[in-house]
Amino acid sequence: MAGNTYGKVFKISTFGESHGTAIGVIVDGCPAGLPLDLEAIQHELDRRRPGQSKIVTQRKEADQFELLSGVFEGKTLGTPIAMVIRNKDYRSRDYSHIFDKYRPSHADFTYDQKYGFRDYRGGGRSSARETAARVAAGAIAKQLLAQHNIKITAYVSQVGELALTQAYQNLDFDYIEKTPIRCPDPELAEQMITLIKSIRKAGDTIGGTINAVVQGVPVGLGEPVFDKLHAELGKAMLSINACKGFEYGSGFEGVKMRGSQHNDIFERKNDVISTKTNYSGGIQGGISNGMDIYFRVAFKPVATIIQSQTSVDNQGNSVDIQGKGRHDPCVVPRAVPIVEAMTALVLADFILRRKTDFL
Amino acid sequence: MAGNTYGKVFKISTFGESHGTAIGVIVDGCPAGLPLDLEAIQHELDRRRPGQSKIVTQRKEADQFELLSGVFEGKTLGTPIAMVIRNKDYRSRDYSHIFDKYRPSHADFTYDQKYGFRDYRGGGRSSARETAARVAAGAIAKQLLAQHNIKITAYVSQVGELALTQAYQNLDFDYIEKTPIRCPDPELAEQMITLIKSIRKAGDTIGGTINAVVQGVPVGLGEPVFDKLHAELGKAMLSINACKGFEYGSGFEGVKMRGSQHNDIFERKNDVISTKTNYSGGIQGGISNGMDIYFRVAFKPVATIIQSQTSVDNQGNSVDIQGKGRHDPCVVPRAVPIVEAMTALVLADFILRRKTDFL
Amino acid sequence: MAGNTYGKVFKISTFGESHGTAIGVIVDGCPAGLPLDLEAIQHELDRRRPGQSKIVTQRKEADQFELLSGVFEGKTLGTPIAMVIRNKDYRSRDYSHIFDKYRPSHADFTYDQKYGFRDYRGGGRSSARETAARVAAGAIAKQLLAQHNIKITAYVSQVGELALTQAYQNLDFDYIEKTPIRCPDPELAEQMITLIKSIRKAGDTIGGTINAVVQGVPVGLGEPVFDKLHAELGKAMLSINACKGFEYGSGFEGVKMRGSQHNDIFERKNDVISTKTNYSGGIQGGISNGMDIYFRVAFKPVATIIQSQTSVDNQGNSVDIQGKGRHDPCVVPRAVPIVEAMTALVLADFILRRKTDFL
Amino acid sequence: MAGNTYGKVFKISTFGESHGTAIGVIVDGCPAGLPLDLEAIQHELDRRRPGQSKIVTQRKEADQFELLSGVFEGKTLGTPIAMVIRNKDYRSRDYSHIFDKYRPSHADFTYDQKYGFRDYRGGGRSSARETAARVAAGAIAKQLLAQHNIKITAYVSQVGELALTQAYQNLDFDYIEKTPIRCPDPELAEQMITLIKSIRKAGDTIGGTINAVVQGVPVGLGEPVFDKLHAELGKAMLSINACKGFEYGSGFEGVKMRGSQHNDIFERKNDVISTKTNYSGGIQGGISNGMDIYFRVAFKPVATIIQSQTSVDNQGNSVDIQGKGRHDPCVVPRAVPIVEAMTALVLADFILRRKTDFL
Repeated sequence: MAGNTYGKVFKISTFGESHGTAIGVIVDGCPAGLPLDLEAIQHELDRRRPGQSKIVTQRKEADQFELLSGVFEGKTLGTPIAMVIRNKDYRSRDYSHIFDKYRPSHADFTYDQKYGFRDYRGGGRSSARETAARVAAGAIAKQLLAQHNIKITAYVSQVGELALTQAYQNLDFDYIEKTPIRCPDPELAEQMITLIKSIRKAGDTIGGTINAVVQGVPVGLGEPVFDKLHAELGKAMLSINACKGFEYGSGFEGVKMRGSQHNDIFERKNDVISTKTNYSGGIQGGISNGMDIYFRVAFKPVATIIQSQTSVDNQGNSVDIQGKGRHDPCVVPRAVPIVEAMTALVLADFILRRKTDFL
Repeated sequence: MAGNTYGKVFKISTFGESHGTAIGVIVDGCPAGLPLDLEAIQHELDRRRPGQSKIVTQRKEADQFELLSGVFEGKTLGTPIAMVIRNKDYRSRDYSHIFDKYRPSHADFTYDQKYGFRDYRGGGRSSARETAARVAAGAIAKQLLAQHNIKITAYVSQVGELALTQAYQNLDFDYIEKTPIRCPDPELAEQMITLIKSIRKAGDTIGGTINAVVQGVPVGLGEPVFDKLHAELGKAMLSINACKGFEYGSGFEGVKMRGSQHNDIFERKNDVISTKTNYSGGIQGGISNGMDIYFRVAFKPVATIIQSQTSVDNQGNSVDIQGKGRHDPCVVPRAVPIVEAMTALVLADFILRRKTDFL
Repeated sequence: MAGNTYGKVFKISTFGESHGTAIGVIVDGCPAGLPLDLEAIQHELDRRRPGQSKIVTQRKEADQFELLSGVFEGKTLGTPIAMVIRNKDYRSRDYSHIFDKYRPSHADFTYDQKYGFRDYRGGGRSSARETAARVAAGAIAKQLLAQHNIKITAYVSQVGELALTQAYQNLDFDYIEKTPIRCPDPELAEQMITLIKSIRKAGDTIGGTINAVVQGVPVGLGEPVFDKLHAELGKAMLSINACKGFEYGSGFEGVKMRGSQHNDIFERKNDVISTKTNYSGGIQGGISNGMDIYFRVAFKPVATIIQSQTSVDNQGNSVDIQGKGRHDPCVVPRAVPIVEAMTALVLADFILRRKTDFL
Repeated sequence: MAGNTYGKVFKISTFGESHGTAIGVIVDGCPAGLPLDLEAIQHELDRRRPGQSKIVTQRKEADQFELLSGVFEGKTLGTPIAMVIRNKDYRSRDYSHIFDKYRPSHADFTYDQKYGFRDYRGGGRSSARETAARVAAGAIAKQLLAQHNIKITAYVSQVGELALTQAYQNLDFDYIEKTPIRCPDPELAEQMITLIKSIRKAGDTIGGTINAVVQGVPVGLGEPVFDKLHAELGKAMLSINACKGFEYGSGFEGVKMRGSQHNDIFERKNDVISTKTNYSGGIQGGISNGMDIYFRVAFKPVATIIQSQTSVDNQGNSVDIQGKGRHDPCVVPRAVPIVEAMTALVLADFILRRKTDFL
């Protein structure tokens, strides 16, 4: 039983292999009457697309989307919104040398075992190219959330050992898009870029982390006991290619604290109940409490390296594999819009699910 | 739209408030013909129940379950399996003092906001008591997995600053259940127990982490692109009360590595394709690759402390709250069987979903 | 993949075998704050229970339900509502003679084939006893619909050849519950009762139809293109034991009409847009249009007869089967509250689904 | 919460408005390794397309589909299969005269009320054009079923008063596709064609029924208690535009029978257990019993007539409406492949769901 759909009310279903005819997405359950800014969708795709800067893959993919349905006279109809992105620059020959080989830490082996065979061209369905469809859908979710004044900001917080230590409240979010690394600390951003360039020069790759902050979330989003808000955020993040971990609020560091330190004391401020601290990360009992939601996501080093590696082929024979093509030395700069998109999809779904809480 | 069901084929739906008449669970989708060991279910409930040792809450709850349906002549019928656990030792008066107050870092405020009112007795639906239903269901899932020779082991890996640093391969899993803290390192276990006792004496609480290892998993479990095996594991863990983070394989530490170090090289060993290292944590492209699956889960310090705290009531007035009753100073020892249960539920679901991969 | 859950937002999951410990239901997704009249639930169960009149089975089952969760201080909490009905009068020996035999037109054979074995006592899960759980859940749905002034009325419209020909507008709905046959035409009701008595005397059974009318439905319920309002009503009715057909509005007779006769002309009346005729049965394009919804449901003759029949056992050997016990000669009088319950469940689900149509 | 997806394991999601850019479908959950005959898909679309004969609408729509994903080297990958059909011959001006008017017995009014506005061109999403996407998906399901030797045959059984009375066993199924009316009785077929021509000449329309027979179904398909095989077939049929009723096996006529007549006696024949009669329609307890499945579906007269009708506009003003364009005088000939497609989708889903019945 396949798993290509995310969401329960605001639902997306993606399709497409990296080097097939097209990838795309159906957004079903978007409410009617939402004015849709198509350029804003393209803008998000541009933030994710290859070739956008010197520190990402130099593949040339325009990632122009075509809208097929669900919008009329500029507004959503309440019917499924289908979007398609054609695959243009695929250069299938780049992959012919590995059609029977299992690239280390890729999904070649597991897809072959699971399905009996696979589209070996560029990873097929397991390629991160699929995330373009999520970004297009997420751009619609963002427009829905904007109606509720909910704002999502993601940024690179670590590359290798280079980690951003300031709390998000002390960062200049406006700087994020001003640097190709999407880290809001100018000095650290430069160091990260330098590191990535040296890594790429060595034909190697490196991991990193992304932080996200969601502001303006109303109280009441999230559905106990399994579909807790942070549980769905976790699933959504972990479903992104290369993701290895998720923590929110105080996270893994919080386990060292005492309850007397960690508890977020309630207070009334300007007639609104809020908490003095926010170790809860804006979520209590799986439900948003009106404070900022923040979380951190880990991404492993990209598996494709331009170095020779040993492996096996589909007969179990030993083979050498040499990465070719144009790949990302580090996934995090391009993953920022993906993290934002998945966050938007989770929240849009919960905004709609919340509507049925009362009579 | 509520979220009290987990799983798509092997599905559980839990119900019940902490101090209502009963809690319970329906397991739907368990295949027919599974011989069911009811004592093994009770055994798992006993591993989770209060009062089992000196370092957990001293509440007396027997947590005896009653089987209502789905089993005939010792085997599952393929019909829904309903189990109920009556709430006996509830002492409602323990909670009357906080019926209109919002305990810090509890779900009182968010439930009130989400639903308009709440069952304030012992946290109602938000109480960790609900996890007993999960453990009962998970015990059935474990019996299904045993048919496939899949074995799940969880253990406490950290309490406060006290962290277990050995790899799981070097641990004696047999020791886990020999100590009330469920940490397989005898010396560290003693230190953890001493720490928890001192914490409790201070009327305080502390966080911790649990590691889990799944052995014997066949290749092919997990459903791209959203229901990746680790994404569902992450959601399942994050849905447990007090959970703040999830990482698998190399996790957050892995972001510091180079791709050339992190890649798991394939090799053929005894006619089976495996990997030399296992930074992937047994999952590639969201699908199990046959290697051990391992992950780590963070739990915050318990919110109920036996110290006076300021807060607000449902009118926004400042109030003092003094924790009463018998609570856990640290959640991790009793969370071990819960982590195992949720892991079993995830895997049982994927075992069944996998059956539809081929014609 | 099992199918024991109905509904997407207002969801019910039933469990239980006819002669196991208990049957029951979880209602999940009922909005918070609904004042719940427990006596009204018991009243609906009493309308369905055996032994209520001379023309139904004389089995003695009190069908008292116990509420386990989801309600606090008289109102729904927004959490799962669990209800259990214990099985008391099961007389297992009545069924021991058929444990390996396949009763004609029962589900014995298909359950055995599907699941490998079955609970042969009284039909187990395939028994119509399961519908008691639906009726209990439907009674909650009815209370939700009452808040929206939606009223559901079902009645017996045919027994064997005896058919009610008047349009529902000409019937006295108040009479329905005044006769055990639940047919609103007093004279025809008497004939039906006489017919059923003679059928029972002959150890035989007979079929019938039930009509239902839903009044006060707001415009806009139903979800194109698959979850059309009438498609879900049809599925819900067809899921009731012994149901063989469903038609709404003009139904099968309407196929003989011309479009120029069949089209329902719109008009404005008292500032409301309505239709002059209602061949559409209150549904257009799968969405309610504000007119009365009406439909008809066919039920086959009960399969258990008190006559000797030939059959086979589970080895394929020829056997004779003689119906024993106390069975319904005609299912329709007791099916009236079941039809109403399933109708209420469909509408409650769509009322909640409708809430997400707009921003 | 929208309803544009059908199926639980073999799932389809359709999209598209009649006069938007395109319509299409994603098939998710089709097992890997199915050799896919693309011409067979186009063939099914050709059976449904406008302009195929003199008795259907003369609109010129080629309905060529494009495959976007999910197939590699001629076989399904186990990933989502996306297919798109561009809208070419839409002549939007044909509809401009009714943009604010509510055509009688169409979905104009209900869509406007449900979503706040609508794509008024050719019915938009409510147009029967959407069923082309179902037919494309159903053609894949048929190929899956062919692997299991399951064969679906649908045919026109009634147009207006002209009804086919023979049992399906006495019909020559080979004749169905030899006549544009798709009725297997040559003489009656001619009468039906003559009737439809006269109806069209009068600018009117007429209803009809379609019968379907499924042969070769294995025992065990269908999921109690809600997702009974006939309940899902009913829902699937009722979700087709213009459908007003569904009955299977003995159907509405069966209600007149005695149990002693209606019961299907089991016998062993050639070591297979079968039934002497088949009033059950091949389904007992919601599960296929290995006998032929047969059912009947009612379709109302097409709402678009070429006659003047009164109606209201969206302000409630009285207006006259005159049907224009090229419409079907009777829906049933073109609905035959749609009925087959939906039947195939239901069965494909249950074939896969059945795989999880056992350990």
